[in-house]
Amino acid sequence: MNKKSNIGLIGLAVMGENLALNMERNGFQVSVYNRAEGAEAHVVEHFMSGRGAGKNFLGFTELRDFVESLERPRKIMMMIRAGRPVDLVIEALLPFLSEGDVIIDGGNSNWQDSERREAELRQRGVYFVGCGISGGEEGALNGPAIMPGGAREAWPLIEPIFTRIAAKAEDGMPCCAWIGAGGSGHFVKMVHNGIEYGDMQLIAEAYGVLCTVAGKTNDEMAEIFASWNEGKLSSYLIEITAEILRHREPDGSYLIDKILDAAGQKGTGKWSVINSLEYGQPLNLIATAVYERSLSAAVELRQEASSVYLRSQRTLDFTEADTLALQRSLYASKIVSYAQGFALLQEASKENKWSLDLSSIARIWRNGCIIRSAFLSDIAEAYEAQPDLQHLLLAPFFQHEIKDAKADWARMVGTAIASECSVPAFSAALNYFFSLTTRRLPANMLQAQRDFFGAHTFERVDHPRGVFFHENWTGRGSDTSSTTYNV
Amino acid sequence: MNKKSNIGLIGLAVMGENLALNMERNGFQVSVYNRAEGAEAHVVEHFMSGRGAGKNFLGFTELRDFVESLERPRKIMMMIRAGRPVDLVIEALLPFLSEGDVIIDGGNSNWQDSERREAELRQRGVYFVGCGISGGEEGALNGPAIMPGGAREAWPLIEPIFTRIAAKAEDGMPCCAWIGAGGSGHFVKMVHNGIEYGDMQLIAEAYGVLCTVAGKTNDEMAEIFASWNEGKLSSYLIEITAEILRHREPDGSYLIDKILDAAGQKGTGKWSVINSLEYGQPLNLIATAVYERSLSAAVELRQEASSVYLRSQRTLDFTEADTLALQRSLYASKIVSYAQGFALLQEASKENKWSLDLSSIARIWRNGCIIRSAFLSDIAEAYEAQPDLQHLLLAPFFQHEIKDAKADWARMVGTAIASECSVPAFSAALNYFFSLTTRRLPANMLQAQRDFFGAHTFERVDHPRGVFFHENWTGRGSDTSSTTYNV
Repeated sequence: MNKKSNIGLIGLAVMGENLALNMERNGFQVSVYNRAEGAEAHVVEHFMSGRGAGKNFLGFTELRDFVESLERPRKIMMMIRAGRPVDLVIEALLPFLSEGDVIIDGGNSNWQDSERREAELRQRGVYFVGCGISGGEEGALNGPAIMPGGAREAWPLIEPIFTRIAAKAEDGMPCCAWIGAGGSGHFVKMVHNGIEYGDMQLIAEAYGVLCTVAGKTNDEMAEIFASWNEGKLSSYLIEITAEILRHREPDGSYLIDKILDAAGQKGTGKWSVINSLEYGQPLNLIATAVYERSLSAAVELRQEASSVYLRSQRTLDFTEADTLALQRSLYASKIVSYAQGFALLQEASKENKWSLDLSSIARIWRNGCIIRSAFLSDIAEAYEAQPDLQHLLLAPFFQHEIKDAKADWARMVGTAIASECSVPAFSAALNYFFSLTTRRLPANMLQAQRDFFGAHTFERVDHPRGVFFHENWTGRGSDTSSTTYNV
Repeated sequence: MNKKSNIGLIGLAVMGENLALNMERNGFQVSVYNRAEGAEAHVVEHFMSGRGAGKNFLGFTELRDFVESLERPRKIMMMIRAGRPVDLVIEALLPFLSEGDVIIDGGNSNWQDSERREAELRQRGVYFVGCGISGGEEGALNGPAIMPGGAREAWPLIEPIFTRIAAKAEDGMPCCAWIGAGGSGHFVKMVHNGIEYGDMQLIAEAYGVLCTVAGKTNDEMAEIFASWNEGKLSSYLIEITAEILRHREPDGSYLIDKILDAAGQKGTGKWSVINSLEYGQPLNLIATAVYERSLSAAVELRQEASSVYLRSQRTLDFTEADTLALQRSLYASKIVSYAQGFALLQEASKENKWSLDLSSIARIWRNGCIIRSAFLSDIAEAYEAQPDLQHLLLAPFFQHEIKDAKADWARMVGTAIASECSVPAFSAALNYFFSLTTRRLPANMLQAQRDFFGAHTFERVDHPRGVFFHENWTGRGSDTSSTTYNV
């Protein structure tokens, strides 16, 4: 009989395989399991004789044997497709588990499913951890950002493994920390992915401005992004943008020019937006990013619309100062996007009693994941200095940054619009900043209209909050306020 | 024994009461029912001896007697709170119903609930109609816009009543027509409400620009909106905006200045946005409107942010030409908002096989409802001329209108932004127009990034659609495209 394994991993697709290799490389013995049906008949065999060969792995195609190979309390990580498969595998595992064993779902599960699974498994004596993992296949292999949440009892059992395999920030801290109860791990991962959508859309818009307004070449743009990567915007996504712009085809042409402008998406951006609506927290940039991807995918419609409207995009004389203004616009817009994302985390934390540590979350994202950047340290510091900070834009550091960028930001959005260049996320960010910092919004008109046509009542500036008034606007109709008509 | 009633109505809150009075006034005998529990103990009695006195009503507090008072096949309309109460009342009704009877839900139900109820009741031999009703309490009494969908078999039975009580358009056509199968009636009502959010937000932004950028007085603004109501923007919401601006308090001051800028909302705007995400159809204006309401409601946060950032809003010399440009911006943005709403209807119709008649829907909305306007006739005509029109902005009439407004629209958004006045919906509309009419969006960069970090593959401009490529960007890592990592 072999020595028992420290952890078991179910699902040997690319993410699972790389995560298993990461664990083994860090000194853990890992049992791996994959079903052996249909196209997957030889997955385990292939792994054990391939990338896993000569290493500290035990391979299984029988769930019972797999479970029995693990030291107790067992730690079993699933890296499988989100949704029903997760429930099916959990059901299949349960007969073989003992009280106090731990199941970890490392897939991109809906946080509400994780919330439910944690509660259900707790009834059955098993600890469930819904664990967000970011970093793609390379991150999984070399160190991802890890966001575990769920049954707190499981944390001491998995912490030694997770903090070893996680990415390390510049200061050596592992990019992994306990997030909170229930589905909080997957919620935080969802918001991470939403922020990733926003970051990517902002970069695409900056690229669009540089192409169509400034008329820059790919090499010029590569240099601009590379120089931005040395400054406040320093981040993985800016770095790869420069690399992408330089990337050539075998015939010497630029690959970026050959890629169709039809963006795909797989749902987590959409989920973030749906949750922002449920929690009543504006998430304009991510919503804009999701919609722009949908619109980009409607290639035929756009081609017809563009030939009907025949807009002539003018190239301007784009100075160094303009490039700097664009950089500042990107930076300020990015601050707004993160401020919105963290406000959503804060509200969800309050509603679900997760007690999220926003500073710790920002720190986890500093490395290993797609949105890794220097900037996240500034966010971590802001929340560390003021754990009850109401909004990121109220932190002194970010106040300074936004004030510094503001004039350039407004000018650049104006320039792009005057040049008929679409900058939906830059515009959404700027308008959000304007609305947030407007003492008196025109929403009094909305309330007047709602009371006029639907008797929905309003509050008054000369009365305390929570006192509602209805006006008989027309002199006819009733004085009764509405109870059933929803608008 | 009395003569049997033509229709029964359940729920005597303000909407139900007014709808019952409308039916009776139009020559129908109506049985009314309300439960007699708790605070509702005397609702029916109160109605029968009050607004219903001396009229052709039968009042009931027993469901069985109520049902038995109706001619067969029975037509029973529920005007009750959406959600679980609807299911409970249906369950309570079923034992007393006969095959072929009709239940109509006239509340603001979720369209997916209506979809489910139609299918369930069909199994039990009862026809279910999910019916959107718009117009508020006044509309219910004097003629609402009515959007019935569900069991087609019910339509001939309810058509004589519904077309009589509905509002009439200028050409005499009733603002009621059969929408389609399943939950389509409530879906269309949901989009109506979403569009209402967009319209209101656009008007609020125009009001905001006139206040803060142009420095107009309430009387000046009232005149401007009243004059707009004579032109292409002619609509109920523009009309009441002028009335609101003129409305005085007993002491002679303007009420609008006393209303707190904290907007409420009750969910249907949010639902529209969630559905737009599910169907992958951009609904930027409505999303912006929902988010702006949330942000407006965070009064304390905005007050703190405004005192921290101390933005000085500059009043400009606002000429007649500027006012005209603002009017055109509002008009063009409104066209975009409706184009987005109708694109969502079109996609939902395709997905659910509802065969929605978009021209007929536009016609229903011409009167009785909150978004009633002259403009809806133009939309109806566009879809009548081209029933398979792919997008409203491709219709010749709207092409002309947008081209005409475009320069003013871009200039006005630029002016507002330069003056630090928030115009999120105007900006979203303009950017959507730019993106839609851009032959090549910067979304190629998104696809390059997604393939770089997640091996998500991309299409190429020099290959047919549907052929996907993966690039080994870094020269290291695998050539395998992603199967499990979702972003």
